[in-house]
Amino acid sequence: MTSPASSLAERPVVRLRANNPKKRAKVGHPWIFANEIQMNAAAKQIPPGEVVRVETEQGKALGTYVFNKKPLICARLLTVDADARIDAGFFADRLRRARDLRDRLIGTPHYRLAHAEADGFPGAVIDRFGDVFVVQINTAGMERLTPELLTAMESVFSPRAIVLRNDGASREQEGLHREVRMGLGELDGPIPVLENGAHFRADPREGQKTGWFFDQRDNRAFVAQLAKGCSVYDAYSYTGGFAVQAALGGAASVIAVDRSETALDKAREAAELNGVDDRFSTVESEVFADLEARHKAGQTFDIVVTDPPAFVKAKKDYWQGVKAYRKLARMAARLVAPRGILVCCSCSHHVEAHTFGEQIRRGLEDVGRGGRILRFAGAGPDHPIHPWLPETGYLKCQALTLD
Amino acid sequence: MTSPASSLAERPVVRLRANNPKKRAKVGHPWIFANEIQMNAAAKQIPPGEVVRVETEQGKALGTYVFNKKPLICARLLTVDADARIDAGFFADRLRRARDLRDRLIGTPHYRLAHAEADGFPGAVIDRFGDVFVVQINTAGMERLTPELLTAMESVFSPRAIVLRNDGASREQEGLHREVRMGLGELDGPIPVLENGAHFRADPREGQKTGWFFDQRDNRAFVAQLAKGCSVYDAYSYTGGFAVQAALGGAASVIAVDRSETALDKAREAAELNGVDDRFSTVESEVFADLEARHKAGQTFDIVVTDPPAFVKAKKDYWQGVKAYRKLARMAARLVAPRGILVCCSCSHHVEAHTFGEQIRRGLEDVGRGGRILRFAGAGPDHPIHPWLPETGYLKCQALTLD
Repeated sequence: MTSPASSLAERPVVRLRANNPKKRAKVGHPWIFANEIQMNAAAKQIPPGEVVRVETEQGKALGTYVFNKKPLICARLLTVDADARIDAGFFADRLRRARDLRDRLIGTPHYRLAHAEADGFPGAVIDRFGDVFVVQINTAGMERLTPELLTAMESVFSPRAIVLRNDGASREQEGLHREVRMGLGELDGPIPVLENGAHFRADPREGQKTGWFFDQRDNRAFVAQLAKGCSVYDAYSYTGGFAVQAALGGAASVIAVDRSETALDKAREAAELNGVDDRFSTVESEVFADLEARHKAGQTFDIVVTDPPAFVKAKKDYWQGVKAYRKLARMAARLVAPRGILVCCSCSHHVEAHTFGEQIRRGLEDVGRGGRILRFAGAGPDHPIHPWLPETGYLKCQALTLD
Repeated sequence: MTSPASSLAERPVVRLRANNPKKRAKVGHPWIFANEIQMNAAAKQIPPGEVVRVETEQGKALGTYVFNKKPLICARLLTVDADARIDAGFFADRLRRARDLRDRLIGTPHYRLAHAEADGFPGAVIDRFGDVFVVQINTAGMERLTPELLTAMESVFSPRAIVLRNDGASREQEGLHREVRMGLGELDGPIPVLENGAHFRADPREGQKTGWFFDQRDNRAFVAQLAKGCSVYDAYSYTGGFAVQAALGGAASVIAVDRSETALDKAREAAELNGVDDRFSTVESEVFADLEARHKAGQTFDIVVTDPPAFVKAKKDYWQGVKAYRKLARMAARLVAPRGILVCCSCSHHVEAHTFGEQIRRGLEDVGRGGRILRFAGAGPDHPIHPWLPETGYLKCQALTLD
């Protein structure tokens, strides 16, 4: 089989439609939509994920893209160099740049190494846990280029193991099946994660997403910095990222609430690893039910954190999800002690920061609580954002003190 | 003279208009606009800045406000307790809360102590430099309450000096004259500021605003963290906040550019104070001219920071100012070395974060530079934001790596 990388001479050409009102691809946007190209018989014959040359309607080269006629986003930019060889060397260069940037920003080799388009890997993310790497491929293009990517990763990092965590729902839009497999080496269980000085164990094969949410690193550090002497309630704690770091920051007591027994087992394990299990407890419960019960019992906490799964997974869920953020803010605010801190997160990329902030404000109004916003942040800098894709800044974390 | 604080029994009452479509004041918004109240003869007689009781059209108490019929925002919330005594004790409580919050967030007593409405001081800010405090009063209400505020500050902090830096342009809308005077003690020159481990000297009587821009603390720390071994160009350096901290962070060389000789003198003084003057130089120049000259000379830098004064000071300047941000991003980007870092700031509160980000992107497009956004932040947490006044989050700082 000829690798897509070696076929520069016979690389298929895709052309933009004439009279296409969108000039975005010409000025740096990394995506081209199906209605922007000449979807002729030749284009329809191009195998899913093939590396192509994209040209304007006048034949001017725009760059090298991966192509898939199936999804709405049919071409994704690899490089503006239309004659670039897309091989292991190409990816090795990008990996080194991505690594060098993280090494400047983050003190440990535990981070998101590659954040899709922003790092030049269209539709693919790579999380790094020391010498173990977890790759998520969400496009036919990067699926087809996986051999080159793996070779590049081996050459740059000499990894102990690479997990291909290819079970994201969006793969189906690209015509890809969902699977989890090893790309290199073997893993026989959880692996260590070091974040803000706290130790955890993540499971790249079984955990959510890649096994760890690196995006909350800075937000967790912010909470930990405020936690000294505080009682902390962490809703949707998952494996204890916020909760354990708050305890390590000096919290007097921490309660981690999640409905997953497996996640709470990991949270408790992390509390022990960090020597804070004497101040750490877990509650296996649906969060809204637990919030309601504690409110009825008159409980309050100095810090309440809510970091739920996306309430808006698709546009059709928008208003229902938005209301759920308001309800969660309202119910969480009732548990915040006077002058305490409320931290509300959303990872729904359909919900804009402005709207999310408004739901928090409305939730506070619902229960007559005033407050002030101390911080309104997104993901950490190992999750960079492509300037043309601000909507990929999905994470929102707002911290307030309440009156 | 009867202090406004002692006159609870005869406190004037201001009523909302019937049929006022805006319900904001009823759900926590701290401002009431002139067209929302019954501006009758009695209301017109209320002295500027008087403490009043505001009621709904049905006579339900909304809270205690300061009132001034002159500006558009005629009433500003002091507290939802309509019977609260507004005296030194009232402000002392707010000052202690504001201080306790900052002491949790920031390691030194150098910070914005009170950030207007968000901290419950309508239209007033207080910056703290250890035992010296700088107050900026921008409303007739806080002007009238200045004696109570000063007494409260004395009781909570025992300050060495308090400067009343009452020379903001917005005072004229409130019918206040502009002046700088001592509220307590004396100052015979600059005072020390400690920020992120770097030492500076600020001049609260002569410098811009209160003499120091505390709002950039976290953004300066971010740049300093990336600066090791880098060449750094700091445009609109003022007294060297970014530049000196970058040098202290290990930059190989730093150039601070500003058109103010006084500011550059202070920047050089700070470089000496921190022992980085061997790697520090200043250029007295208009920034656009210097950027152009260096571009023509083919110079590049590993990090370029632009932190200009507000290009949009009033709504009428909007489009011209927005274009200037694009132009500055474009010209600054040309000086960024391959894989270098560009940091663009705006303190124009009329320019929304979304629009500012778009101008940076367009500036990059203009010169064909790709990149990724590492961080898009506002002011630090000692500049909290009232949930009803997200537009007061004026500062925007975007850091990108360029290809």
